[in-house]
Amino acid sequence: MKAEILTIGDEVMRGEIVDTNKSFLADRLLGLDIETHFQTSVRDDPPAMIDAFKRAASRSQIALVSGGLGPTRDDLTTDALAEAFGLELILDEASLERIRSLFHAHGREMTENNVSQARFPEGAEILPNPLGTAPGFSIAQGMTRFFCLPGVPNEMTRMMDEQVMPRIEAARGEGPAVRARLLRTFGMGESTLDDELKDIAASGDVSLGFRTSFPDNYLRPLARAATAEQAEATLDRICDTIKQRLGPLIYGEGEQTLEAVVGQMLAERGMTIAVAESCTGGLIATRITNNPGSSAYFAGGVVSYSNAAKSDLLGVPAAALEEHGAVSDPVVRAMAEGVRERFGVDIGIATTGISGPDGGTASKPVGLIHIALAREGAVYADSFVFRMERTRHRLLTSQIALDWIRRTLLGVELVGPKWTRR
Amino acid sequence: MKAEILTIGDEVMRGEIVDTNKSFLADRLLGLDIETHFQTSVRDDPPAMIDAFKRAASRSQIALVSGGLGPTRDDLTTDALAEAFGLELILDEASLERIRSLFHAHGREMTENNVSQARFPEGAEILPNPLGTAPGFSIAQGMTRFFCLPGVPNEMTRMMDEQVMPRIEAARGEGPAVRARLLRTFGMGESTLDDELKDIAASGDVSLGFRTSFPDNYLRPLARAATAEQAEATLDRICDTIKQRLGPLIYGEGEQTLEAVVGQMLAERGMTIAVAESCTGGLIATRITNNPGSSAYFAGGVVSYSNAAKSDLLGVPAAALEEHGAVSDPVVRAMAEGVRERFGVDIGIATTGISGPDGGTASKPVGLIHIALAREGAVYADSFVFRMERTRHRLLTSQIALDWIRRTLLGVELVGPKWTRR
Repeated sequence: MKAEILTIGDEVMRGEIVDTNKSFLADRLLGLDIETHFQTSVRDDPPAMIDAFKRAASRSQIALVSGGLGPTRDDLTTDALAEAFGLELILDEASLERIRSLFHAHGREMTENNVSQARFPEGAEILPNPLGTAPGFSIAQGMTRFFCLPGVPNEMTRMMDEQVMPRIEAARGEGPAVRARLLRTFGMGESTLDDELKDIAASGDVSLGFRTSFPDNYLRPLARAATAEQAEATLDRICDTIKQRLGPLIYGEGEQTLEAVVGQMLAERGMTIAVAESCTGGLIATRITNNPGSSAYFAGGVVSYSNAAKSDLLGVPAAALEEHGAVSDPVVRAMAEGVRERFGVDIGIATTGISGPDGGTASKPVGLIHIALAREGAVYADSFVFRMERTRHRLLTSQIALDWIRRTLLGVELVGPKWTRR
Repeated sequence: MKAEILTIGDEVMRGEIVDTNKSFLADRLLGLDIETHFQTSVRDDPPAMIDAFKRAASRSQIALVSGGLGPTRDDLTTDALAEAFGLELILDEASLERIRSLFHAHGREMTENNVSQARFPEGAEILPNPLGTAPGFSIAQGMTRFFCLPGVPNEMTRMMDEQVMPRIEAARGEGPAVRARLLRTFGMGESTLDDELKDIAASGDVSLGFRTSFPDNYLRPLARAATAEQAEATLDRICDTIKQRLGPLIYGEGEQTLEAVVGQMLAERGMTIAVAESCTGGLIATRITNNPGSSAYFAGGVVSYSNAAKSDLLGVPAAALEEHGAVSDPVVRAMAEGVRERFGVDIGIATTGISGPDGGTASKPVGLIHIALAREGAVYADSFVFRMERTRHRLLTSQIALDWIRRTLLGVELVGPKWTRR
């Protein structure tokens, strides 16, 4: 089954927005074992749109179209598709009523231009939009099934998952059922993962994909079977095997971020944390507090950029700062212990390092990072040198810090990524 | 002049990466007043690539191609382009020598597959790659000029700016010179900006574009003139007019982020800051410290998620917390003063609020935010209600905080955005 993706809109073509719809749709198709062969974007320009629709109908079994379903003069997808294939547009009273009631619910009157959103090509199946006024639709044209969705990402993603995915699967009919999962790993490089799992990657009913999303690596097992239940059962088995083999290298599945996983573990255990950040500059705290409900387990943090802040707010001994410098093992340990004590929490975590691009010396090069974790009766610390650009350096450091919290709660060894080691 | 953009690579087509190259290239073309009519992505698949190249040659004067210039078996752009137009591939000894010396500089031997990166279609002009091993090239085919660039974003962007942009301008020949700038504004909605500047937008030799990049709005004046100097002079004049009219609503130009502007202003004045964050959770500190060299003016911060942290680390009076609650005017003022005093800095800034999705009450709804700025002898505070999703709420709050620092240094009124007001 060949698929292609069309996105429509001047704002995409002018580079005003980065088009994330295409990668989302391609990823979802891949989850059904369907390869996207073409991605095309055109302006809100009927001849270009008609040409793109006709080409899609000549070469793809599935065409996902996003954008151009709004109420303005620039929204021309429905008209262009109807013109491309010589179809009449028919007003759907039920859709019109729904749009009108949406306006009423917001205390407004529907304007006349919204009527266009209730017109669909003859033979189209209407796909309701639970989040906006623009319904989508699906229509078959020769060998090709078109799915037209709004361009607004949250509307498009929900309609893709709830309405388009089941229809594509059903349309595929006789073929095997396909199911995929995403396992999120941190701490091992892609080639090592590949090597560790090569027997699984080569087994008949499963294919194992890899993807890097710095600083993580994702595994994507995909199973084909006669029924969806069998595919799910195969996936269960494969994921169990992978988890047994990789152990704590896997931190989550699907959309679970590391900060969400850590937050949930802390909440379940009724434990609390605080952070003392130097080189990460607040990034660990920002990531933790991205999670709604983080106040249940996050007491707070200190961003101690200056030495004075390290002594005054965290109680780092002036002697340690003077003798070893701010980027040192004794200082990072004192920071972790200090923040744990000041905030009265179960776990204190600390970072100090040189994210660059300047500030390095021969003995303390740019990229050097010290991390410490303090808990009841113990402090663990380690150092690494990561030679990479500042933003990535900070992101990686924050990932190790979060991972150490997770590893502490799991009772496993606190290790860094197996790439570079001081 | 019609342009189109082609990006090539399985990783794009599988949705593994969001393709930001297309929006970058489209934006740069727009800076030369050239509209992108088509964007196409194909897999590392010669028939699809050849088809895309031929279509580009049939309809566009400029085709920007990104990706597929690497040394692996999957990198097929050069071969496919040569095949599409019946061109020989010719080894360029100078490029080969440069690739070999790059390997030597890293203490490695060049492998045989890198030789492919030194082959170019006959008649191509080679575009050196200052950051990687893959050179690009430019070649004319009928009415179309192709520019082939690597897919790696930092290599591609630099080669586009330094090598492709001047060539496109030269190739355009007789037409008017075009120059564009980007002015970054914060605090006024797009429709109000449009209204304020409508006489400029309508003047003959300038067109004024608008773009929203939450929470900012960008203005893009574009001038056409007989020579580049005249276009620049027109832009100077227009930008002066816009700046006079909008005053401190404009905070920067081009790639300057608000945190970079604020950092530069602080460094120039030799002043220092510290932040006390509750609902923003470290985001203000993170943004400030994204800037290399921020340790010159940023002493640090406290993320005071818990009430205990607010009293113990910032000296917020327990009575204020009890009487008014953590999200209140007296508390945010005490936080700003407390952090200023504890860190011994010139300016202390504080946030406390309810970013949601939960935690609101009738008198303190979700979206409520208090911000305060303390300086020598004065504390300024205000509150707003922004009904928006958590991540945007935090980002907007951090933007106001940074903007207040800028406004304090400029000696102008500390105002919030003119959208919603409590």
